[in-house]
Amino acid sequence: MSHFTFTCDRSCPDTRARAGVFTTPHGPVETPRFMPVGTLATVKTLSPAQLQTTGAQMVLANSYHLHLQPGEAIVAGAGGLHSFMGWNGPILTDSGGFQVFSLSEMRTITDEGVTFRSPHNGDIIAMTPEISMRIQNTLGADVIMAFDECPPYPATREEVETATNRSERWLKRCIASHSNPNQALFGIVQGGVYEDLRVMAATRLRSLDLPGYAVGGVSVGEPPELIDAAVRQTVPHLPENKPRYLMGVGTYREMARAIASGIDLFDCVIPTRFARHGAALVQGERWNLKNARFREDFTPLDADCPCYTCTQFTRAYLCHLVRSKELLAYTLLSIHNVTELVRFTQRIREAILGDRFAEEFRSWLV
Amino acid sequence: MSHFTFTCDRSCPDTRARAGVFTTPHGPVETPRFMPVGTLATVKTLSPAQLQTTGAQMVLANSYHLHLQPGEAIVAGAGGLHSFMGWNGPILTDSGGFQVFSLSEMRTITDEGVTFRSPHNGDIIAMTPEISMRIQNTLGADVIMAFDECPPYPATREEVETATNRSERWLKRCIASHSNPNQALFGIVQGGVYEDLRVMAATRLRSLDLPGYAVGGVSVGEPPELIDAAVRQTVPHLPENKPRYLMGVGTYREMARAIASGIDLFDCVIPTRFARHGAALVQGERWNLKNARFREDFTPLDADCPCYTCTQFTRAYLCHLVRSKELLAYTLLSIHNVTELVRFTQRIREAILGDRFAEEFRSWLV
Repeated sequence: MSHFTFTCDRSCPDTRARAGVFTTPHGPVETPRFMPVGTLATVKTLSPAQLQTTGAQMVLANSYHLHLQPGEAIVAGAGGLHSFMGWNGPILTDSGGFQVFSLSEMRTITDEGVTFRSPHNGDIIAMTPEISMRIQNTLGADVIMAFDECPPYPATREEVETATNRSERWLKRCIASHSNPNQALFGIVQGGVYEDLRVMAATRLRSLDLPGYAVGGVSVGEPPELIDAAVRQTVPHLPENKPRYLMGVGTYREMARAIASGIDLFDCVIPTRFARHGAALVQGERWNLKNARFREDFTPLDADCPCYTCTQFTRAYLCHLVRSKELLAYTLLSIHNVTELVRFTQRIREAILGDRFAEEFRSWLV
Repeated sequence: MSHFTFTCDRSCPDTRARAGVFTTPHGPVETPRFMPVGTLATVKTLSPAQLQTTGAQMVLANSYHLHLQPGEAIVAGAGGLHSFMGWNGPILTDSGGFQVFSLSEMRTITDEGVTFRSPHNGDIIAMTPEISMRIQNTLGADVIMAFDECPPYPATREEVETATNRSERWLKRCIASHSNPNQALFGIVQGGVYEDLRVMAATRLRSLDLPGYAVGGVSVGEPPELIDAAVRQTVPHLPENKPRYLMGVGTYREMARAIASGIDLFDCVIPTRFARHGAALVQGERWNLKNARFREDFTPLDADCPCYTCTQFTRAYLCHLVRSKELLAYTLLSIHNVTELVRFTQRIREAILGDRFAEEFRSWLV
């Protein structure tokens, strides 16, 4: 795994927060860092050139969605995900596990894997650790994720324990069937809201010496305080010299608190989804740009934001575009919202480097 | 009108085609030139930065639509259309006439003007030459259009004659109520498919010595050969030293033939509308990118096209985006389609300058 290194530049003296650099074959990722989601090999509404301007370094794509459309063979035919979607920076693919468990119908789970009905054509599709690895190897992202079982929240302790143990067995099969040194396989710590299961899973996964670790199973309906607790219970049992990724989380408070607990990477669909609903993330708040109060507001969305949207347009113009249902509204709001969350993690990074994190971000941490 | 000049750099020896430069307060427009349409102060799906890369020089906006949403006062509050939409190049607004006649309900036409029901809130709205001028003066485009009556096709000779005469009276009221020297008011030659009415209208409008002339009323359902005929009948009666604009036309053949008859400017919603239907204009054809033949086609949309879409992505990726209904599909296809039509007119311009037009574009002219 020599293509991947994680160096910690600075640890926060009064929290577990750390500023580091995770290097990949497609460049470095400065951590902590928010990663936008490009489900179907496009961060919705943004061209790669626009995405570049947001400061995003690593982006996600979804194996489940890409397996169904266009199929990984076509992505490989284009030369892999980077060249298919025109993004030359680092890419991470998830395993499809989360989507199989949250989106699919006619699901059957066995120790072998999962079968489900394709929402595209009704075919029965099998997903196993080996198949997920093959799909992700074919897609060719820099970081690939273990195929795991994600029990919904709430779930009984027994259900979570069964899923956690099965996820560990599946992880070992992922490791056995993954051989591409240009792709780093991250393990995912499950365990739900049960501290002993989290500790057990983290300890076992640590012994497998993977190039990175994710805290999983925290965004399937759990309240924020439980996410917080799961992260605090898990991180101390993960190695210091590997990046840590909190899956599916991208709100200000949860990111700030998870960073204080030692998380390095985040992803979330919120910035692009909010944009498509005409909403902007501005200094910690969600604003609906359709609101009449913006109709004659000729100031920038956020005067402190350096993004294309904030430097070129007014709230009045964005309000007009949203009210007119012009697609440019969703592009301009996505540019801002992605920039905003990336910047939030960048500002935290700078604060950590300057020993100012706990003080400067106190309002998010208490 | 000293802010506006039209210089003819070269006339084609064997057709009426000419290559010129039309200067405006926001920069020059090299003619012949296709102008993309930004109905609601946005060329649909494109940011101004993306629009810039297409080679578009002048863009259109629609007074009718902007009057209804957000209202010209808000555009003026932002500092006018250029700053509202972030486009610092030349802009042309139409008068609203075409939309009032083709889109609105409960229409009543008198010599004073037109009243119609707002599709937004049901209010009865009046549009007169004076109101159209006030709206367009407030919007602040470089070129503004006379408010005219557009009879539908087919219409009787009597109906067309009535509309043509009324349009002339309305034009004189437009001239009387327009006073901003930073905006050039173009007259619109009506006359339908009746040569004598076209000649009469052109001759009368010529005597008004306007800074530019449009051939109007040719796109409301008329067959291409009638457009062709109307242009050929009208242009010889317009002055040589003023730009000529064929409204609502933007197909390859009709533009090539109209240029051969002496037209300088075109506009059409085709490139962005086709894009939103997943279609690309490629070397004179319309391709539906959803077609299965593109699924594994890893070549550029058009290897000869210098646009962002053609240099960065494959047909397979565009096919995937269209099939997935990803909004980026519409943006990337709009970038290409606008570039394609602008380039078509640019290539004609270069051919005229090199005395090669009639020969090089013969296939479109016969």
